[in-house]
Amino acid sequence: MPTISKKGKLMPASPIRKLVPFAEQAIKAGKHIYHLNIGQPDIKTPEVALQAVKDNTIEILSYSRSEGSEAYRIKLAKYYAKHGIDVSHEDIIVTTGASEALLFLFSSIMDPEDEVIISEPFYANYIAFSTATGVNVVPAICNIDDNFALPSVETFEKLISPKTKAILICNPGNPTGALYSKEEIHQLAELALKHDLFLVADEVYREFIYDGESHYSILQEKGIEQHAVMIDSVSKRYSMCGARVGCLVSKNTTVMQTVLKFAQARLSPPSYAQIASEAALDTPQSYFDNVINEYLERRNTLIEALKKIDGVKVAVPKGAFYCIAELPIKNSDDFAQWLLESFDIDGETIMVAPAGGFYSTPGVGLNQIRIAYVLNKESLLKAVNILKEALKVYPN
Amino acid sequence: MPTISKKGKLMPASPIRKLVPFAEQAIKAGKHIYHLNIGQPDIKTPEVALQAVKDNTIEILSYSRSEGSEAYRIKLAKYYAKHGIDVSHEDIIVTTGASEALLFLFSSIMDPEDEVIISEPFYANYIAFSTATGVNVVPAICNIDDNFALPSVETFEKLISPKTKAILICNPGNPTGALYSKEEIHQLAELALKHDLFLVADEVYREFIYDGESHYSILQEKGIEQHAVMIDSVSKRYSMCGARVGCLVSKNTTVMQTVLKFAQARLSPPSYAQIASEAALDTPQSYFDNVINEYLERRNTLIEALKKIDGVKVAVPKGAFYCIAELPIKNSDDFAQWLLESFDIDGETIMVAPAGGFYSTPGVGLNQIRIAYVLNKESLLKAVNILKEALKVYPN
Ligand SMILES: Cc1ncc(COP(=O)(O)O)c(C=O)c1O
Ligand SMILES: Cc1ncc(COP(=O)(O)O)c(C=O)c1O
Repeated sequence: MPTISKKGKLMPASPIRKLVPFAEQAIKAGKHIYHLNIGQPDIKTPEVALQAVKDNTIEILSYSRSEGSEAYRIKLAKYYAKHGIDVSHEDIIVTTGASEALLFLFSSIMDPEDEVIISEPFYANYIAFSTATGVNVVPAICNIDDNFALPSVETFEKLISPKTKAILICNPGNPTGALYSKEEIHQLAELALKHDLFLVADEVYREFIYDGESHYSILQEKGIEQHAVMIDSVSKRYSMCGARVGCLVSKNTTVMQTVLKFAQARLSPPSYAQIASEAALDTPQSYFDNVINEYLERRNTLIEALKKIDGVKVAVPKGAFYCIAELPIKNSDDFAQWLLESFDIDGETIMVAPAGGFYSTPGVGLNQIRIAYVLNKESLLKAVNILKEALKVYPN
Repeated sequence: MPTISKKGKLMPASPIRKLVPFAEQAIKAGKHIYHLNIGQPDIKTPEVALQAVKDNTIEILSYSRSEGSEAYRIKLAKYYAKHGIDVSHEDIIVTTGASEALLFLFSSIMDPEDEVIISEPFYANYIAFSTATGVNVVPAICNIDDNFALPSVETFEKLISPKTKAILICNPGNPTGALYSKEEIHQLAELALKHDLFLVADEVYREFIYDGESHYSILQEKGIEQHAVMIDSVSKRYSMCGARVGCLVSKNTTVMQTVLKFAQARLSPPSYAQIASEAALDTPQSYFDNVINEYLERRNTLIEALKKIDGVKVAVPKGAFYCIAELPIKNSDDFAQWLLESFDIDGETIMVAPAGGFYSTPGVGLNQIRIAYVLNKESLLKAVNILKEALKVYPN
């Protein structure tokens, strides 16, 4: 039998995926599961986006331009302008989700053996995109006791080697909910300039910021136009994960021309999804106000309840809709599986994401889980109660 | 300024892309262009597919499963059964176009420096996917005088090295229209078995076969279940290029599990497009009968007209909707540009695809162009007339 690639063997399986058979088993056994493990919001997609697709008058569903429909890119540039980000539609390439934008970017700026420094814990698929492109991840470790603040510039600088090509941050962060300040971005920008590195910011959660704080995009930072690349997506902003539309934004024309070559090779991003995404830009502000308010209340409910559990430590998220909780356990993979297999309260249990998958450093994060607050408050409270009772009886 | 990757520099730009500015210039100057250069059919998408999207009742546009919606995969397996291909939905992974299926497959079975043997001329983006994954393409050269028949097994065997991991064919072929017989597939299968190689068939044009011939899929060949991978797409079959739905089909579970890891990393294929694709499976046979008949007449019209031009040689396509024509010129890149810049008949000119981009062998195919018969007969005749008159005055 012919063998698969080394890279294919190294590709990580989704950390949650391993739990799926146990979840299916639990459901078969009649249990109800509160899904705290997923990044799929339960919020409704804006009506204006759904309606635009229903109203389409397409007769031939043809390829769009590889860089995305021009009308959409022009409207998207206006959206960014409203957020203080000054870009033209030519600085935007539409991709099939932020996922594809990340893959194209990794391929465009890094070769196998090159290094990317990423603040850790990070979105698990950064490892997958690195593996797919043969790139090595160098983690800049953040700490729960520090509320997962960005490591100091000195820490980042020590990690730079001749092979380093880029620094990647996620702001606000999945899985931590950490939000980086203007000053922190500024310092990273100076570092990127000093060492001539790309500074990449995954800003797919831009809109989800709490406590009156505001988001500072790397594209607002002056002087790093040739170094900055921003990754974005409609998935979370409009609860449109299934559309598969994201984008890559940069003023570095060499990067854009290179990314475009990868984009041309796959022909075009999905057409229906671009119709939905363009229309979504007309979503009224009230939609966001409601959504942010809902997430804020959920966050407060969740964090407060978690803090009351003995031995549980939790970082307070300032953005996105995740938090990392440290539990009085040794191995959260085992704990997550046990919750599905062997625990319930009145037929209900919870599914959580073991945090190991968000760390590249072996052994770190094994006593942590990620909780997504994509459920309503009542469900969150029930879920946290299940966690609390479970910890009392879990055979650690 | 930080530099882009070596791979990014090596990535080929789309061969047609270079002509786009000249085409835009010609349009600005008021010329009408007959587009013989594209693989975007002018055929209407089946109503049943378009309607299903309009009738959708989605409220939250969520991620689908990474391997594609189960309902769609189950229905797709039935479609294959109708075509004599015996697969279960578990042998199918839905991808964002055949493009993504090819990229995932290359990544799953080959590492940088590995080799894939491809019958040449081939779909230009095979080079792009190879470059993106660091894989080397070894061409098995086909000849226009031979109607681009598959090279002999001996020829293929001579090209096999210790680095060879796969043989890739496109059946029926873009850009040649060549259709491979059961016997040819059988011989390639034996070769793949003998040398333990993957045999990959891109069958996205399966449905477009002329002259009463029939299509033989590699998945119909017995005994190579562990070696065979089939690539498919809804793009051409249902004139749904903008959907971005394809798939990868194989009974090799190691390959499937590996491809799934790449699929998980990008989360899911587009949801609306899967609705359209699932509904498209209900397209009545009459739709295909009409479409195939239309293409057949176009092909006959085109080939007949081309054959009448002095010094033009053309291979007769048995499938797909392209043909390669050899012209009495030295450089079709230059010719294609000249057609847009400096030639017209009553304000009309043509855009053709220079064939150089379909060959990896340097210098080969420079006097050839690819013509897609995605225009109606009247337009095709006008276009061929423009070609004929242009050749008379082109300053070679
Ligand atoms: C930080 C981050 N980046 C990128 C993505 C991928 O998003 P998309 O759906 O746009 O591919 C996600 C999805 O969860 C994410 O959390
Ligand atoms: C031979 C061949 N394979 C694959 C593709 C890519 O198709 P898709 O639109 O499904 O990505 C094309 C598109 O022209 C093609 O001609």
